[in-house]
Formats: sequence, structure tokens, C-alpha cells
Amino acid sequence: MTERRFLLPDREMPTAWYNVLADMPSPPVPFLNPATREPISPDMLTPIFPMGLIEQEVSTQRWIDIPGEVIDVLHQYRPSPLHRAVRLERALGTPARIYYKYEGVSPTGSHKPNTAIPQAYYNKQAGVKRISTETGAGQWGCALSLACQWFGLECTVYMVKVSYFQKPYRRTLMRMWGSEVLPSPSDRTQSGRDALAKDPDSLGSLGMAVSEAVEDAFQHADTNYSLGSFLNHVLMHQTVIGLEAQQQFKMAGDYPDVVIGCCGGGSNFGGLTFPFLGEKFRGEKQGIRILGVEPAACPSMTKGAYRYDFIDVAKLTPLVKMHTLGHTFMPPGIHAGGLRYHGMSPLVSQFVEEGHVQPVAVPQVACFQAAELFAKTEGIIVAPESSHALRVAVDEALKAKAENRETAILFGLSGHGFLDLGAYESYLDGSLVDYELPDEQIKATLAELDGDLSFA
Amino acid sequence: MTERRFLLPDREMPTAWYNVLADMPSPPVPFLNPATREPISPDMLTPIFPMGLIEQEVSTQRWIDIPGEVIDVLHQYRPSPLHRAVRLERALGTPARIYYKYEGVSPTGSHKPNTAIPQAYYNKQAGVKRISTETGAGQWGCALSLACQWFGLECTVYMVKVSYFQKPYRRTLMRMWGSEVLPSPSDRTQSGRDALAKDPDSLGSLGMAVSEAVEDAFQHADTNYSLGSFLNHVLMHQTVIGLEAQQQFKMAGDYPDVVIGCCGGGSNFGGLTFPFLGEKFRGEKQGIRILGVEPAACPSMTKGAYRYDFIDVAKLTPLVKMHTLGHTFMPPGIHAGGLRYHGMSPLVSQFVEEGHVQPVAVPQVACFQAAELFAKTEGIIVAPESSHALRVAVDEALKAKAENRETAILFGLSGHGFLDLGAYESYLDGSLVDYELPDEQIKATLAELDGDLSFA
Repeated sequence: MTERRFLLPDREMPTAWYNVLADMPSPPVPFLNPATREPISPDMLTPIFPMGLIEQEVSTQRWIDIPGEVIDVLHQYRPSPLHRAVRLERALGTPARIYYKYEGVSPTGSHKPNTAIPQAYYNKQAGVKRISTETGAGQWGCALSLACQWFGLECTVYMVKVSYFQKPYRRTLMRMWGSEVLPSPSDRTQSGRDALAKDPDSLGSLGMAVSEAVEDAFQHADTNYSLGSFLNHVLMHQTVIGLEAQQQFKMAGDYPDVVIGCCGGGSNFGGLTFPFLGEKFRGEKQGIRILGVEPAACPSMTKGAYRYDFIDVAKLTPLVKMHTLGHTFMPPGIHAGGLRYHGMSPLVSQFVEEGHVQPVAVPQVACFQAAELFAKTEGIIVAPESSHALRVAVDEALKAKAENRETAILFGLSGHGFLDLGAYESYLDGSLVDYELPDEQIKATLAELDGDLSFA
Repeated sequence: MTERRFLLPDREMPTAWYNVLADMPSPPVPFLNPATREPISPDMLTPIFPMGLIEQEVSTQRWIDIPGEVIDVLHQYRPSPLHRAVRLERALGTPARIYYKYEGVSPTGSHKPNTAIPQAYYNKQAGVKRISTETGAGQWGCALSLACQWFGLECTVYMVKVSYFQKPYRRTLMRMWGSEVLPSPSDRTQSGRDALAKDPDSLGSLGMAVSEAVEDAFQHADTNYSLGSFLNHVLMHQTVIGLEAQQQFKMAGDYPDVVIGCCGGGSNFGGLTFPFLGEKFRGEKQGIRILGVEPAACPSMTKGAYRYDFIDVAKLTPLVKMHTLGHTFMPPGIHAGGLRYHGMSPLVSQFVEEGHVQPVAVPQVACFQAAELFAKTEGIIVAPESSHALRVAVDEALKAKAENRETAILFGLSGHGFLDLGAYESYLDGSLVDYELPDEQIKATLAELDGDLSFA
């Protein structure tokens, strides 16, 4: 009987995060101050981030110790299991060995608490009383709510108004974990009041919610802001995923030939793959392929430009060099809400540009088909985001079958889909569609950048 | 740092179920044929159950080997973790050590697959092609759907019509796992057609759905019926829960002074507690207390009669001696749908009657209060059913605090609440209420039994 699950005992959870900045072949590209076009200095971030996190953002130290209090909290659900997908392999009739690292075991159901917990910790250490953040459908807001609850911090979540009213369940979860949840635009901030004055019935947007959360943090000395993906320190916190997977592959007596993760802002992807990339950069392992999967409806890596752009719609942030569709790009309403972002983490973008990461774009119906097969074989209902990585893992396994080739595939199963069953209902009813995304639309939003940012 | 999780490796999962019939001090009370009032013989059950399960229903062998194929499937999610609730202990300021066995890690989110899997297996072995069953909110229907999918069986689920339309998410899950789901009453059976002729707008009931599923199995030679709780073999399949917990307590170097489970039909409760009861019956351990928790709105054990009654509303089943509120009892609409049953497993009832199990009834608002505290400390959103066991565990820990007494408490966390967030929303909004259940209502439904069943 083939072993099905590889469980690490608590004491074997990693005690340090892996920082890929120590090993990457070329240095990271600096963030720029949009006013001066000069690299920003760390102290420009102190009004909204604690120094502990700012230091991690720019550190080039390879291993950064996870504080004991953070380890203690991570043990509520970590290490997470590595599974061998034996039933999926059989259904596909493939000689490939398929593994998945399952982050749906966290209390919020995704990988997001892996960074929410240390972010809450460092803010608590810095004497902060409250954290503000934005959330779309609610996955990040849930993780930060729980983390703040665990460290005795208050948490204010600006939730895009249309999701606040149409997807109430994650709002309920955030309230259960003790957060104040406001529909954005709200009357709590000037940005929100301005938006409501212009349109009292505004449904909000993620860009609007970011502006409110950042303004809230700027306006209150006891309040910081928190971001759930994209930045270096966020990706680094997620490396517990890949580090555990490496130990679990040793238990399995195997090593992946290909590692696959879905990419929204890049934190799930970076967390899973950077420890493997590091082994490659250091020359300890050769030949491993790293695939980053994005939705065909929001193809920043495969169709975007690699250039400087803003992180947010309201242009409050520094300029970052990344793969982008333009910060005014509005992706179609695919169900994988966590992958609907105009840009990509600068580290992931740089690795794509330098050929270390191979990007792949997939349409959503094909992802849900893979998710249905996975439900019927492995049992787990995957989040729509995770189904993108799964789709590519299945395709890799089918290629191996066609070539009658043994291979070991690892994909990141970043979360479960119990709060996405409306999407599955559409799929089963046949009303789920793929969106056509005309190249002209991407060209148009990128062209808008060429006014202010023509230097980039 | 106190150890937080006790994880058994796959190879240490139990390989035999524990059958409490081997050790119980007095023999089990027989089921009766309602027509003759004579004990029923096993062969009367063959039209709807496979012989493998009928033999287990009446066996007095202490250990019954789990077939290899069943173990192989259980390894998709078992062994399940035992957690020490350190954060909850701290929040309560109790000297008690609180442990919970967490069954929410199964793909369907509850303990139900533990019996759905062997039931599907024995039906497959018997050459059955299809299984019919009923489901209320859908927890049992989900588990059987997945199990049938794994063993290549078709599955037809009669789902109470009001839930089919008002709680579509578990219906979606059952369809993802490949089942046909019908709103009951349906036009597929005579019982359904009769009900629709009488009232085309009937919302259905669990009793109606049972009648349809049983009729379906009786009418088709290739189809069997499956029950998700109540019967001896179902409780026995669930003993993997308690057996694993016993091994995990050895890892923890501890042993529970009290074991607490919620009781609907009795399968979660029996699965957790019977292995501990067995140690007590065999004289290997003394002093352990076993608490069975039911909702105050459906108090079969604390306010029902111990007497013969039907399992179902339509009186299609044998007569069973049990704690019952009368098979015509309609419990108020509490959110713990899995605990809304007029009777109780005959084994659990007998242990209550003989003093081995102490029943406790709790109102729902107090259960949700405990669930909120649990979410804020341990992170997990518990199913409303499981919150009943949690409430009593918290009460036990508070008693220990008042008496400044160390004690070890184990409760069964039978499932997560991600599909019950509407109930949590009512709780947070303050609209959740406790139901007054007048003793007269219970007296009335019990009095109805005294016509046909006055002998009992």
C-alpha cells in the first residue's frame, strides 16, 4: 500500500524562515518614490509598518529565526500535511507521482494565517494597538482577524461593499474572530466619504478599500496597516510551506521534478517554491522546474509588461518593478477572487523575467473540471484559486503519461472551497464560462501608464 | 511550551473496530417485529442491508478487523488529530487540561465518512450497484456520496425539500461527489407521489425522506439502503475515533477523567466513548465519567421515555427500545440539525438507563457562546452540533476552576461549521433564541404511542 500522507511532528516544524534574497542571482530591483523616482528608504514605511517587518523586507540574511511566540501560535495548525494523490494518479492512469501540500487545514482554510500571525506579532511587539487592512471576498481579512485576536490586537477590516453584502459568510467569520468589519467605501475615512459623496450607492473596489485602510493607519498613531501578499517579507513568512514540503519529501524518499503554485499577489507561490528555488540557486539541486499559474482572465505574467507600476489603484504606494496589466486594469469576474490582481510580487516577477519561473495561464472552466476530478478521487473540495495549480499538475501528469515517463509533481493546494460552493454550483449547472480577454484591453491599461510613468 | 497536537502516523491507525457488545454488563435489548412483537431475525434485514453489515450489527466479537481496502480509504484523512486546547484553558483560567479529538479534517468536514466508507465497501462486496439514503441538511448525504464515489457505487440521496432549496451548498457538494440528489417528496417513489398528491407544495420531512429511500431500496434488487447513525454497526465503525484518542493520550502521557460527546442518533458519541467505556467495563480503568450532550430543545435522554418505539416517522422500521420523545415528535428548528431526532441509539440509551452514561441537556445560545470563545482561542469554527459537547467541556473546566482541581477533559469535536455560518450570523446579530419546550408537548407525543405500543 503506497503511503498517502506525510505528517511532520510539531517539533520538526521549521524554526527559521528562508529568505531568497540571500541566494538570488541578481539583486532585487528597488522600490521607487513616485515623486522623486529615487529608491525609497526603509524609514519611509515606518508610519504604517513596524520596524521588525521593514527590516525583514530588505534583509539579505538567508535564515531568519521565527520568534518562539510565533512558532507557538503556528502550532495551532502546522506543520500541514503533504499528501500523495494516489487516487488521482490512478484515475489519470499516469506513471507520475503527484503530491500536494495542503494549507486548507488552517482554521481560516487557507495559507494566509502563515503571514498574518507574524505580522500581528511584530506589530504587537512595536506597541501597536490596532491593525487596519482591506479585504475582497474575505480570505485575507479572516486570517488577519484571527491573528490579531491571538495577539490581543484590535483589527479593522475594510471589505469591498459588494462582497460585504453578497458574500456575508467571511464577514461573519471575521466578526466571530473579533474584528470590526466595515463596508467600503465607508464614512470612516476621507477617501471613503469622498467616494460616497460622489456616488452614495458605490459598490466599492479593492483599490478603494486599500486607500481607506492605509488612510486609517496614517491617521492614527496607534494603528498600522497590513498587506496579505506581494511584499518580500510576506512571501518569506510563507516559506514554512516549502520548507516543510522539503522535509516531507525526505520522508517520502522522493524529490519533485516540477513544483507548481497558483499566483495572485505571489505569496502562496513564493512560500511553496522559494525554498526549492534556493536549492537550485545554491547549486544543491539541478533540473527542477517551477511553474507559476495565473488565470487566463488576469494574465499579468504571460501578457503583462515588466515595468514600474503602482501596487494600488489609488496610487498611494511606492512604484514597484513587476509584471503588470496596469493598475487601472479591471479583471473579469472570475471565481478565483484571490487571483484577480493587476500585478505580481516583484520577486516572482523578477524570477519570471530571468527564466527561473515559467508562467502558465489557464482558463477557469478547465480548472473547475480538474477540481471535480480531484473531489471525486482525493475527496477534497479545493478553492477556485488552488484549482489553477491543480489544473497544471494534471496537465503535467497527462504529459508524463503520453511520454510514458516517471516524474514527481508537487503542487500547492492553498485552501479549501467550502466558502466557494456558489461557484461550484454554477459549474455543475453549466453556467460557468471562460472570459475572452482582448489583448487590446491590456494594451489600453498599459498605455495609460505611459503618461506619468513613461520613464519606467 | 506545552505540546499542542498529537498526531498518529498512518501506520498506527487502528486496524480493528471495537465492539462494545463484547463487554457490556447486560445483553443488548432485541429489536422487535412490530406485527408479531417477536425479536427480529437477521435475515429480515437482507432486502436492504448487505450480510456483512447485518453480521456486524449482532456480533459479540470484541475486535472486528477493518478490511484492508477500507483502511486504505480511511487513510485519505485518518488518523485525525487530538489537540490540547491550551489557549482555551488560559482564557478560562482553569487548572483543567482540555483535549479535543477533531473530526472536521475529513473531506466532508465531519465524522460521518468513518461509517459511510465501510458501508459502501460491504455493499460493493455484496454486488450492490446503488445505495439510497435520506439526508436533512446534508452532512450524511455528503459522506455517503463521497464513499460511494470511492467504491464505484451509484448513490441516490433523498434530501428534505426545504433544505434542498434553502441550503443548496451541501446539495452542491453531493453533486460534486457524483450523487443524484432529489428533493423529497419526489415523484420517484410511491410514498413520494402519495405525499405530492396530497400536497403538491409539501416541504418534506426527514421521516418522509427515509420512507422514500427505504422504498427505493425495497423496489430495486440492485439497490440497498444505508443509515448514517443509530445502529450498532454504525457506532462500531465510529470507534476509530475513540481508539485513536486512546493512543494519542498515551503520547500525551495523560488519561481523561471525563469524556464528552454530543448525541443526535448516537454515532459520534458512541464512536468516541465506547472504547473508553470498554476499558471501564473490563475493569482496566476506573473512575472515568462519560457525558452525553443533547439539545434542551430535543431532550430524548433527559426527558424522554425508555421504551419501544419506531426509528422513523412512517413506522416502516422494527421497534427498538430506546430513549424517545415519540416518533411523531417535531423538535423546534434549532441550528444543530444533526441533533434533531426523536430517539437515541439503543446502545447509548441502555448505557444511560444503566448509569454508565450521564446525559446532559443544554440550550443553544449557551452553546454558541462557547463556540465564539473557542473560535477566539483555538481558532476553529465548530459545527453547531459539536458546540454542545464543547459547552459541557467548558462547564466542566469552570467547575474544576471553582474547586481548584486538576482534571483531564476530552470532548469530541465532530465537525467544522463552515457550512453553518448563517447560524453564526444570527448569533452575532442577537437574533438567536432558546426554545421553550413545554413538558406537555413531550407527554403528548409519548401518549400517542400508548395506542399501538401500549405493551412496550
